[in-house]
Amino acid sequence: MSKEVKPESVSLCPLDTAAAPVPELLCIFGTGDLGRSLGQRLLQSGYRVVYGSRRPHSCGPLPQGTQVMSHAAAAQSASLVFICIHREHYDVLETLAPELKGKVLVDVSNNLKKNLYPEANAEYLQRLVPGAHVVKAFNTLSAWALQNGPSDANRQVYLCGNSADAKQTVTEIATKLGFTALDRGSLSAARELEDFPLQLFPEWRLPLRLALGLTITFYVYEVVRDVVYGYVHQGKDISFRMMVSLPNKVFPTVSLIMLTLCYLPGVIAAFLQLYRGTKYKRFPDWLDRWMLCRKQLGLLALGFASLHVLYTLIIPIRYYVKFRIADSTVSQGKLNKTLEFDTTMAWRTDSYYAMGILGYAVYLLLGITSLPSVSNALSWREFSFIQSKLGYLTLFLCTFHTYLYGWNKFLIPYYYKWYTLPTYMLSLVLPSVVMVLRLLLLLPCVDRTLTRIRQGWERTDPEDDSKKSLLT
Amino acid sequence: MSKEVKPESVSLCPLDTAAAPVPELLCIFGTGDLGRSLGQRLLQSGYRVVYGSRRPHSCGPLPQGTQVMSHAAAAQSASLVFICIHREHYDVLETLAPELKGKVLVDVSNNLKKNLYPEANAEYLQRLVPGAHVVKAFNTLSAWALQNGPSDANRQVYLCGNSADAKQTVTEIATKLGFTALDRGSLSAARELEDFPLQLFPEWRLPLRLALGLTITFYVYEVVRDVVYGYVHQGKDISFRMMVSLPNKVFPTVSLIMLTLCYLPGVIAAFLQLYRGTKYKRFPDWLDRWMLCRKQLGLLALGFASLHVLYTLIIPIRYYVKFRIADSTVSQGKLNKTLEFDTTMAWRTDSYYAMGILGYAVYLLLGITSLPSVSNALSWREFSFIQSKLGYLTLFLCTFHTYLYGWNKFLIPYYYKWYTLPTYMLSLVLPSVVMVLRLLLLLPCVDRTLTRIRQGWERTDPEDDSKKSLLT
Amino acid sequence: MSKEVKPESVSLCPLDTAAAPVPELLCIFGTGDLGRSLGQRLLQSGYRVVYGSRRPHSCGPLPQGTQVMSHAAAAQSASLVFICIHREHYDVLETLAPELKGKVLVDVSNNLKKNLYPEANAEYLQRLVPGAHVVKAFNTLSAWALQNGPSDANRQVYLCGNSADAKQTVTEIATKLGFTALDRGSLSAARELEDFPLQLFPEWRLPLRLALGLTITFYVYEVVRDVVYGYVHQGKDISFRMMVSLPNKVFPTVSLIMLTLCYLPGVIAAFLQLYRGTKYKRFPDWLDRWMLCRKQLGLLALGFASLHVLYTLIIPIRYYVKFRIADSTVSQGKLNKTLEFDTTMAWRTDSYYAMGILGYAVYLLLGITSLPSVSNALSWREFSFIQSKLGYLTLFLCTFHTYLYGWNKFLIPYYYKWYTLPTYMLSLVLPSVVMVLRLLLLLPCVDRTLTRIRQGWERTDPEDDSKKSLLT
Repeated sequence: MSKEVKPESVSLCPLDTAAAPVPELLCIFGTGDLGRSLGQRLLQSGYRVVYGSRRPHSCGPLPQGTQVMSHAAAAQSASLVFICIHREHYDVLETLAPELKGKVLVDVSNNLKKNLYPEANAEYLQRLVPGAHVVKAFNTLSAWALQNGPSDANRQVYLCGNSADAKQTVTEIATKLGFTALDRGSLSAARELEDFPLQLFPEWRLPLRLALGLTITFYVYEVVRDVVYGYVHQGKDISFRMMVSLPNKVFPTVSLIMLTLCYLPGVIAAFLQLYRGTKYKRFPDWLDRWMLCRKQLGLLALGFASLHVLYTLIIPIRYYVKFRIADSTVSQGKLNKTLEFDTTMAWRTDSYYAMGILGYAVYLLLGITSLPSVSNALSWREFSFIQSKLGYLTLFLCTFHTYLYGWNKFLIPYYYKWYTLPTYMLSLVLPSVVMVLRLLLLLPCVDRTLTRIRQGWERTDPEDDSKKSLLT
Repeated sequence: MSKEVKPESVSLCPLDTAAAPVPELLCIFGTGDLGRSLGQRLLQSGYRVVYGSRRPHSCGPLPQGTQVMSHAAAAQSASLVFICIHREHYDVLETLAPELKGKVLVDVSNNLKKNLYPEANAEYLQRLVPGAHVVKAFNTLSAWALQNGPSDANRQVYLCGNSADAKQTVTEIATKLGFTALDRGSLSAARELEDFPLQLFPEWRLPLRLALGLTITFYVYEVVRDVVYGYVHQGKDISFRMMVSLPNKVFPTVSLIMLTLCYLPGVIAAFLQLYRGTKYKRFPDWLDRWMLCRKQLGLLALGFASLHVLYTLIIPIRYYVKFRIADSTVSQGKLNKTLEFDTTMAWRTDSYYAMGILGYAVYLLLGITSLPSVSNALSWREFSFIQSKLGYLTLFLCTFHTYLYGWNKFLIPYYYKWYTLPTYMLSLVLPSVVMVLRLLLLLPCVDRTLTRIRQGWERTDPEDDSKKSLLT
Repeated sequence: MSKEVKPESVSLCPLDTAAAPVPELLCIFGTGDLGRSLGQRLLQSGYRVVYGSRRPHSCGPLPQGTQVMSHAAAAQSASLVFICIHREHYDVLETLAPELKGKVLVDVSNNLKKNLYPEANAEYLQRLVPGAHVVKAFNTLSAWALQNGPSDANRQVYLCGNSADAKQTVTEIATKLGFTALDRGSLSAARELEDFPLQLFPEWRLPLRLALGLTITFYVYEVVRDVVYGYVHQGKDISFRMMVSLPNKVFPTVSLIMLTLCYLPGVIAAFLQLYRGTKYKRFPDWLDRWMLCRKQLGLLALGFASLHVLYTLIIPIRYYVKFRIADSTVSQGKLNKTLEFDTTMAWRTDSYYAMGILGYAVYLLLGITSLPSVSNALSWREFSFIQSKLGYLTLFLCTFHTYLYGWNKFLIPYYYKWYTLPTYMLSLVLPSVVMVLRLLLLLPCVDRTLTRIRQGWERTDPEDDSKKSLLT
């Protein structure tokens, strides 16, 4: 690359001449959405742009100030060419190999599916035009992000290629366009980069499957215990309960279990570190993976909690509930006796509702601080305070809410239909265990040891030491 | 501009001398909020700053480490001057023309209203000081953004000017301050840049007007059908229903219609592409504009849905509802007959509520992913999955919710008061049509053609071909 | 620093040779989380990395492509060393003073608490290795932010140090890593930078304390007026009301007062400016501090309003409420008289609910636009429109909601238990005053003067003028 072809870099150095610098000319092959967006952005950032097209005379509207030529003519005018055409049309480029020799080719292409082709698009391109320096870049950005410039998560441009020089040139362009370039190594990383935009919520899969599994399991369990039991033992058709009543038992159960699953791995990790006496051994893979999806587990749990709130709030407008209340009031009037007001009952139910509301409020707060823009504005200490302290407060409030719901029902045989436990009891097992373990970790002696381990201290067993001395 | 006046650019190049570089001196005219914020930021980024003021001895607190001088003295000390004074005081600058000759003047001013003056402030400045190089820049930032540095949407600095050299200098300063500079061309673009900060939700106007129009129309319609009808035919004063009952009919109607309007343009566009056999022809302007405000339409629809939820949830605590229930219970007790429990009714109403809640939950999810920081964190495929797949799920659930609400009411003449349709029926027309059209597009043969068209394939009619050959 | 040690800067200048530039080698002392994250990020940004470790042979997994050596060997290989070790181990560095002479040492350390040590870590380091150029930097970033690159609020890197040259070198690295470096002066600023990540919601403290104080005060007040009064005067145990009924009186009261406190300082400031006749005098400190925590006050007020909404919506499913309704219905049936429907009552309560819902909806909108990513996307005019116009609308709707709640209760002596005012009356004082003052400010003559003052106009008293002429 000679000095003349990179006038843009001059702008960052003291100008030797008084003349205004001539903006660098870049070439784009392909006049589709991506090509047009890229061209517009390059123009705005001070480059000149020329398009190469199969049909230079009928290629739709292009950004003002650009030229369209044949592929060959366009290639010759610039030292860097963006390839914004589909892989299926790459064969055209093979015929242009002489014109593209020594040029930097930026492959921005993506495929519609993973593993459609045996080799990555960029590697295929390099094979077709061996004389050029292929760089894979910009493919993780949408046409929209390209045109409107970088925003929070779309700031990073991943690139890879075999020529350090060519990568440097592309890095400069990315920087001037406002992006941060990240070098991912040689062209063999191209496949990884091309798979990137095809991902569909990879980190949500496990939590979503878990949530779905739990929901279905508990729903079927409740249908059997409630509707089938009612039909078999009492001969009543209460199948309508499948729409609101049963979901409103399943949702809080799943929510509480999933919330607990956010805090269980941290407790396990702490006990593992205590047991091992060091923080420098890696956690088992399953624990690492579990800890990485805690945010998703928590947000799904919040979603289920929100459904529980809405399902609870519509209770009084349900036909079934209104019918039952009217019925009981009428029969109460007929019997002509005054019902006694039960203060304990009033205390219990009101506490139950208050715990639920407060738990949900702190829960919502956790959810809001999980929003990228909010969590980014927090210092590390603030973030960990919220997710840990307030997280355990949520867990406590929600568990207490469930205990108050249960109250003394566990003493009444009626609730153990067909010798099964009600779902709310099942949902209480895990959070109770986690909170006991957490309290153990808060004991001064345990806490002190753990803090020391986390600051780098290691418990050295005599045998362990001898082993080390042998190694070193 | 000589080499000496731009020592800041040296910092990016290998240092030839061991001495620390002397920070560049920049001048700011005006000691108001903007001038002070800008000065503070420049200081933090490593520049030296001198202020020019009408009254250098009484101009309030300025950032520590800066100097204040008269305009003339300040102008002479630096090669670049930020003009942070109101346009009304620009006449002062005319007298300084000799001192400002050859300098770069950065006009950061804004006006209070559009079209206050016949020419842009920056153009007026250039006319007053023809010897200087005026650059319009930084005016789209608030004093707050200037002082605290760039954040997500305030990252971009638009600039324009006639001297490429001067623009380059300003670009470098903007970059060093952490902003991304975008060149918008010559100084004639200044008016556009000055109108920028005066905009008030331009993209929300159309959707807001539509929402307001629909709300008023349906509200009046319902007042006539309900309150006026009740007064005329039954002689009852039910005007109190105007506060809660009627809005709770209007809000869901408007919400469903506006939600549908998010998905209708996509369907129309698909059919247009199928009809034309190409994706390369531009859509009509009205369709383009419609598609650009889909996000706003959807968020407004979500707002109306939320109001519907809140209005529904307070139903049981309303005096009117409590009165009616007590009344009917009492008369039921008097008649001394047992009401039969209607299982179908229980199924229907519970399903109706469940659909509503689930629809609202998915709807909320759509709204949350519309938050800039969340949507930025999604890949393109994830974003389109949520907005398209989950969007149609929302539309389906909400439409189904409305159908369940209607149930068999359409068979009962009582509801067709004065031969008019109830609002919920009116609201069902559009979503039903959109969903049928969408199902048509999902038919394998139609879907295949559409996919090919969107990948760039074009249907070529024989006549069309001949036309082309004539043209080229 | 010689030219050779800074090859990274070459990348921004025209290349003189065709050879690819050799990436610069940087050294990291310490192989903990921070050291590893930093190393990974440096590698990705194109640097070569060498680690210095106490135990180079047993220091856990390090990023691929890096080398580990003894401290001395590593220090000699590079001209810049990141110190990623705990302050307690700095004594090791003292022995390395000869090897570290003339090098740039980047201190990234943080402490666990404020004021643990008499001097800042970086100053301590400079004292231990006087021949090196210590720069404090990167300590405000978490290991996570370092590894994953900058995001919204974690974009800025604060640095300080005594050597301008050394700071320049660190600035270049920070820029290449995608961060924006902000120079905070000499090494004496290190303490400030080290205290930064230890802050725990400093701007939330005052509002949180205020909210807590108000909540406790009003809660105790209501317990006395309600529960104690009921016990003393009527001999009834209504203590269960402490769980839901009383909080639902306290929450809206606190919410309304805190919302008013968002708008009171603006009104005070306006009257102060009118009285002083200038905007150039500083506000008293308490007013400045008050104005800076308006956002937090408003968000807390929104939190209390949300609790009020949830507490209100569960009213109909409370045991106490259901009991009372059934009881009154039964006794109504016994008395065998028809209750008259009270249209005024229906109007009043429905209006009351409607105002509350609409007020809460606008309130939520204010909260959503306070999210960093949303407010960043707004222009200054849009933001101030929402926070001012919609803010006052919220205040009006919520105040009106409270007045409708009160209605004619202020005429009924029963509510003045023990000659005290109900909380809702207390909560109405402040918002009523603020709204009257705000209306005064909207009077044309007052508004005109205020606008002129805010545009820089000053009222000049004759005496004042004479004073000024004496001074200048």
